[in-house]
Amino acid sequence: MAAEIVNPRSDERGSDTDGGMEGAPAEPFDPAFALHRGGKMAVQATVPVRDKDDLSLAYTPGVAKVCSAIAEQPELVHDYTWKSQVVAVVTDGTAVLGLGDIGPEASLPVMEGKAILFKQFGGVDAVPIALATTDADEIVETVVRLAPSFGGVNLEDISAPRCFEIERKLQERLDIPVFHDDQHGTAVVTLAALRNAARLTGRNLGDLRTVISGAGAAGVAIAKFLLAAGVGDVAVSDRKGIVSRDREDLTPVKRELAELTNKAGLSGSLESALAGADVFIGVSGGTVPEAAVASMAPGAFVFAMANPTPEIHPDVAHKYAAVVATGRSDFPNQINNVLAFPGIFAGALQVRASRITEGMKIAAADALADVVADELSADRVIPSPFDERVAPAVTAAVAAAARAEGVARR
Amino acid sequence: MAAEIVNPRSDERGSDTDGGMEGAPAEPFDPAFALHRGGKMAVQATVPVRDKDDLSLAYTPGVAKVCSAIAEQPELVHDYTWKSQVVAVVTDGTAVLGLGDIGPEASLPVMEGKAILFKQFGGVDAVPIALATTDADEIVETVVRLAPSFGGVNLEDISAPRCFEIERKLQERLDIPVFHDDQHGTAVVTLAALRNAARLTGRNLGDLRTVISGAGAAGVAIAKFLLAAGVGDVAVSDRKGIVSRDREDLTPVKRELAELTNKAGLSGSLESALAGADVFIGVSGGTVPEAAVASMAPGAFVFAMANPTPEIHPDVAHKYAAVVATGRSDFPNQINNVLAFPGIFAGALQVRASRITEGMKIAAADALADVVADELSADRVIPSPFDERVAPAVTAAVAAAARAEGVARR
Repeated sequence: MAAEIVNPRSDERGSDTDGGMEGAPAEPFDPAFALHRGGKMAVQATVPVRDKDDLSLAYTPGVAKVCSAIAEQPELVHDYTWKSQVVAVVTDGTAVLGLGDIGPEASLPVMEGKAILFKQFGGVDAVPIALATTDADEIVETVVRLAPSFGGVNLEDISAPRCFEIERKLQERLDIPVFHDDQHGTAVVTLAALRNAARLTGRNLGDLRTVISGAGAAGVAIAKFLLAAGVGDVAVSDRKGIVSRDREDLTPVKRELAELTNKAGLSGSLESALAGADVFIGVSGGTVPEAAVASMAPGAFVFAMANPTPEIHPDVAHKYAAVVATGRSDFPNQINNVLAFPGIFAGALQVRASRITEGMKIAAADALADVVADELSADRVIPSPFDERVAPAVTAAVAAAARAEGVARR
Repeated sequence: MAAEIVNPRSDERGSDTDGGMEGAPAEPFDPAFALHRGGKMAVQATVPVRDKDDLSLAYTPGVAKVCSAIAEQPELVHDYTWKSQVVAVVTDGTAVLGLGDIGPEASLPVMEGKAILFKQFGGVDAVPIALATTDADEIVETVVRLAPSFGGVNLEDISAPRCFEIERKLQERLDIPVFHDDQHGTAVVTLAALRNAARLTGRNLGDLRTVISGAGAAGVAIAKFLLAAGVGDVAVSDRKGIVSRDREDLTPVKRELAELTNKAGLSGSLESALAGADVFIGVSGGTVPEAAVASMAPGAFVFAMANPTPEIHPDVAHKYAAVVATGRSDFPNQINNVLAFPGIFAGALQVRASRITEGMKIAAADALADVVADELSADRVIPSPFDERVAPAVTAAVAAAARAEGVARR
């Protein structure tokens, strides 16, 4: 008989007494590790399985009638299974938080976190699916094959530019919502904050010249979304400066961006583009010098959303800007995706939308902004993630927009 | 604005007042439909997400430390995510119950049922994955890509002979348990019942000549497993009669079976093979004439496991046999896979087994048989699915066997 395999780290656990799983490493000082022991989620039955009568309904022989009914009328799958209330949270682990390409297993804590936020805030069931491939076509094929089991697909932490191609191909091939949250969730919450900042300061979106730092998934999506919502001009900067038509080093995605954005014809550095700009949106992780912030137009909005270190510290931004937002929970105006994705999927699933349209996203942003419309202040252009009015408002707006746009199926 | 899409069936719901989902069809008389409304399962958070402090641990920024730790020490994924407690219940919908190839969506009620049985009986989380492909290689590739998210794979209701190839290839490529329950779960419970029937009647497994009706997934697996456990001789019959070396119409799987089984060199019909046989095991769905049962050896065992109609009605079988078992809950001695798979996976996951070996399956069968060893009677050679001793006994036995066989990793 082989010896029992003993985890060599199990002696190092020291004073840990939380009764968690054996064999974990020492984690004396960080509550995040203690909280993550054994994962953050579970499955539960929603019907009883106490005795053979229960079993004969939930399993054989009763279940056979339900299966036969679905085989005959395929749309019944939405009524008699959890398909229409469960979302696959799909990643390949290539762009996880600010950590980059850490692989599928290491991304799982984020995907579980996302799943429990779906449940907590939207009442939507969600399952982490971290894939052992980074090939765009393989990811697409895999998700297409999984699709019968799910009511929607939330793409997560997949690096650009593959994320654009993967989302587009999946949207073409599937008749359920496919939504890359790093793009569209961020864009929706950003638009909501921008709309309220404009409201607060008596400006029109059409008059705002906006500069976005970062041309990854979030930057590209925010740029397109703000333009679709009527923002006057948007310029996007990557590491080499403003994305403009005269640059010859652009990827296809950035070439498209150069056509759509930068009406002012800016080129050169981010800093130079900020001179006279009304809005700065940071999704880059870089830093912006104070002098560049000082050069913005009076009453500017600074949304410095890099985590954990904003591109501009809020204390500095406040010296020049009328409204300051970040991605952090310890400053006012947190631009947090959790304000959007639970309600967007809850609304889409509620009406069995075949996809999530621009109109549904704009409706989500408007509903989100409207939650605090009567309470606006410079420190309150966006609701708190724990504002209980948020998810119901977004859900209802997205469901109504899906019906209005003809993509609802109930 | 497009008109709201109204489900044409929503007017037909009649007297249904259970408060379930809207738009479902009328289902006045069958409680199975009412029970299945909205599905049978949900996801739940196992950690609190009540305020921003909770969020900062379960999601950003706290989660980043956990992700980084796993990226550095990959085995930590077992400690800090749900991976090692969640099983993918994978099907392609080609062999669902007795319904056959009804497709992935229509199979979902069975997969959800399986998932809640995993939870209820084994404390194991499970997620239904019904795939939109029936190509063996595509199924293999898909499951390999999903594997980072799961601690084990339960293959379910995949038709023979693809099920054999799919299981073998997945076992070769993955370092987590891959278990086709229709094969091995059935085989484990059958062996347990056979062992106790032999015990009750003072027989040795080695003396039993056994005839199996059905050469699909279950029949093939039972034949191999009984031989591995020491049963004297096993002959298997398909629709064309006994599988024997002189047949020229055999698939590769059946050719292998012909080499392994049928030491007696039988050929011809199932009925003729039953003459003088000690054990009949039915996993075919056919019927066996009373005369054939009457021709079996005195004190025979008849396990007529076809559902819902046993190959031989128990009342008829009792006229000739010492022990009678079926697959039905309304007769004594129900051979039900739920006696095996929850504990087998719970035991394998508990010790992070890299696979499920023959030794682990035999340990499961022995433990299952031992639960009722002191209470044996002709109507009690196998415990009830609701016997609370079963899952802990099977779990412990499988975990110990995994350690003994050197496949445990903790």
